[in-house]
Formats: sequence, C-alpha cells, structure tokens
Amino acid sequence: MTESGKPILYSYFRSSCAWRVRSALALKGIDYETMPINLIKDGGQQFSAEFQALNPMKQVPVLKIDGITIGQSLAIIEYLDETRPTPRLLPQDPRKRASVRMISNLIASGIQPLQNLGVLKQVGQEKQLTWAQNVISVGFGALERILQSTAGEYCVGDEVTMADLCLVPQVANAERYKVDLTPYSTIRRINKSLLALEAFQVSHPCRQPDTPAELRA
Amino acid sequence: MTESGKPILYSYFRSSCAWRVRSALALKGIDYETMPINLIKDGGQQFSAEFQALNPMKQVPVLKIDGITIGQSLAIIEYLDETRPTPRLLPQDPRKRASVRMISNLIASGIQPLQNLGVLKQVGQEKQLTWAQNVISVGFGALERILQSTAGEYCVGDEVTMADLCLVPQVANAERYKVDLTPYSTIRRINKSLLALEAFQVSHPCRQPDTPAELRA
Repeated sequence: MTESGKPILYSYFRSSCAWRVRSALALKGIDYETMPINLIKDGGQQFSAEFQALNPMKQVPVLKIDGITIGQSLAIIEYLDETRPTPRLLPQDPRKRASVRMISNLIASGIQPLQNLGVLKQVGQEKQLTWAQNVISVGFGALERILQSTAGEYCVGDEVTMADLCLVPQVANAERYKVDLTPYSTIRRINKSLLALEAFQVSHPCRQPDTPAELRA
Repeated sequence: MTESGKPILYSYFRSSCAWRVRSALALKGIDYETMPINLIKDGGQQFSAEFQALNPMKQVPVLKIDGITIGQSLAIIEYLDETRPTPRLLPQDPRKRASVRMISNLIASGIQPLQNLGVLKQVGQEKQLTWAQNVISVGFGALERILQSTAGEYCVGDEVTMADLCLVPQVANAERYKVDLTPYSTIRRINKSLLALEAFQVSHPCRQPDTPAELRA
C-alpha cells in the first residue's frame, strides 16, 4: 500500500491478466495506484531483482493490499471478493459459483498461458501466429458451447462475474492475433455488452497510465 | 451421479489434474465412481462425441455431482469445499486463502498447462523434454521462494489445502520429466510429508482402476 493507504497494482497496460484485476477494482470502486511494469522495455522489467522479490514468478499483475502481496489474477479477484463483497463477482449459489470458476479457469489455465508472450517467444516468430490462433480457437470452441448453457446477459446469468473479467481480455487477445470470431456468437454478444460498461472502459489497455501515446484512445 | 447417487469422476490415472481432485475426494471421504477416459488409446477417448458433450474442453477431470457437471480441477475442488466443508481445503482467514489460491494458480496456470500432453505434442518429440524441464524449473524456482514464507508442515501452514493437492501431482510430473529437484528443498520436504498421507496414496496414479498392470504398486 502507498503511504496514503491505497492498494498498489503492478500492471502492464497490455497484460490480459492485469486487465482482469483492473476491471475487478473498477467494478468494486476500489481506489488504487498503478505501478507500471513494462514487460518489453529493458529486456522486461519483470526480471528486475526488486520485482522478483515481490513476485518470484516474474509476472503481472501483483496487488499490494491490506499489508499483503498477492500474485495470480484469480487469487487476487477471489481475495477482493471475500474482503470487499459489493458488488459480488461470484454468485451466492455454489452451483453458479462452480460455473463461474470453471469458465474462469478454462481461460486462465486452458487458453491464456499457452498464448502469452513468454511461450510465443519460445515457439519462434514463424509459428507464433498459427500457434496462438490454434490455442484460442480450441478454447473458444469449448467456451462457446459452455456459455450456451450458462449465459444470460453475461457469462453466468445476468450479473457480471469473475468469468466476465476473464472473457473480455481474452477476446482482445484473440482480436490481436486475428482469430476469426465469426463462429463464437455468444462470446461476441457477451463481450459487446461488457465493453459497454464503464468498468471495462476505464480498465481498458488503451486508457492506462503506461499506455504509449500512439495507442491511447 | 450413478443410480445409487454416487458422484462420478471422469479420470485418467496419469492425469495430474485428475489426481488433484481424487485427493480432494479422498481427504473429504466422498465415495465416488471412476469413469476412466484414456487420453492415449483410440487416439484419445476425450475426443469422443459423448465425452465432448460432457466437457467441450476435452480434458479430464470432470465431476458429475449434485445434478451438475463440473470441469476444471480447481473449480471442482472449490465446489467440494463449499458444499462439503470438512475438512477445509481452504483456510478460514482470507489472507491465507489468498496464499493457497496464489500457489494453486501458479501451478494450475503457470506450470501444468505448459507441459501437458497436448502442448508437448505440438512442441515436437526432439524438444519436448527440454521444454517440459524448463517450464517446471522456472515455476518451481518461484514456488520454492513463495513457500519459504507461507509453508508450515504443508504449503500454507500446518493443514492440507488445495495448494498441496496441486503440488504433489506437479512434483510427480517433474520426476517423470527428470527435473533435478535438488534446488527445491522446501518443495521436496512438503511433498514427502504429503505422500505419507493416506489420501495421497489412495489417489496415486499407480493405484487407480485404470492403472495398467505393469505400473501398479
């Protein structure tokens, strides 16, 4: 926390995992300070000794809050929901919570890690676009089918949940890697509804303190 | 559920994600039936139309319980903990819960997906051992540092938690891929304590209904 007691989010404007947390903070109206960690510059600021001391996994996001330091976006969001429960990001009904967590983990374990910067670097420049497109298409194919039975206005019913916080940044990654989204009409519909909400607009990569001028909107 | 009302776990003896759930079921003393899904045989039984209808993500584990079907191991474990709270697999204190989830996600998003069968196939036979070793070593390096501040007898304090359910199968994968575990003394110590518990023994890959005779112990 800062001297003023605000939580500090270590973030990179383009990180989809940081975006998940930024939108959670926005939905809950939690005031925080951003500490930008540029994942490209200087060979990657996440590799600095200071940052590694904070998160040995060398990834953003990291949130300092209530005297503790938390890494891993879903762990952060669950903590925020347990300690600042309004509005809820996990429904009250355990069965619906299971759907929310299933969708969140499908994205957070089944799609995102396989198309992040570090992996794509290892895959090699030639193959990386095809690799990312394949990973996202397989995941979205599954997600589309699941959403057909869980979705209302959003991923699970009509309230915004943790699943939605995972969906929006993953769709943005899909667009970045030029995945054809035509087959995923439910994903597209939900994503559109979510992007109309203020919380997803203020947390958007094009509106962060570390967004380069040419990418601002 | 079966006609007798027992939950059904779709599992593969060697799947590290299925092992997480098997040990949760064992710790909580939940009686269940195993439906083996062989990820290798017939080109992979997870690709059958029947199984895809159950889990469009074509992965084990899947648990049918209480009239619902849940995929994604951490979503399953959280559901079991919410509906069958004894013994707890997440501590009561939100800060400790955050540590448990951070460690669980570090493994479930940061290590396991990058060294699973599907990815290694794409990486190609030549490079797959080095790839798996690299992914696990990076993750274990981070995990070792985190555990130094969270661990008691187990990953977080002195009670078995969801983090431990993730740790044991990941260490088994590391051994399978011949990762040198010497640098990770905390991981080794905790893993050894956990393997001495009955819940990790009955759920072990070498003791499942679908374990091939030559691998039984």
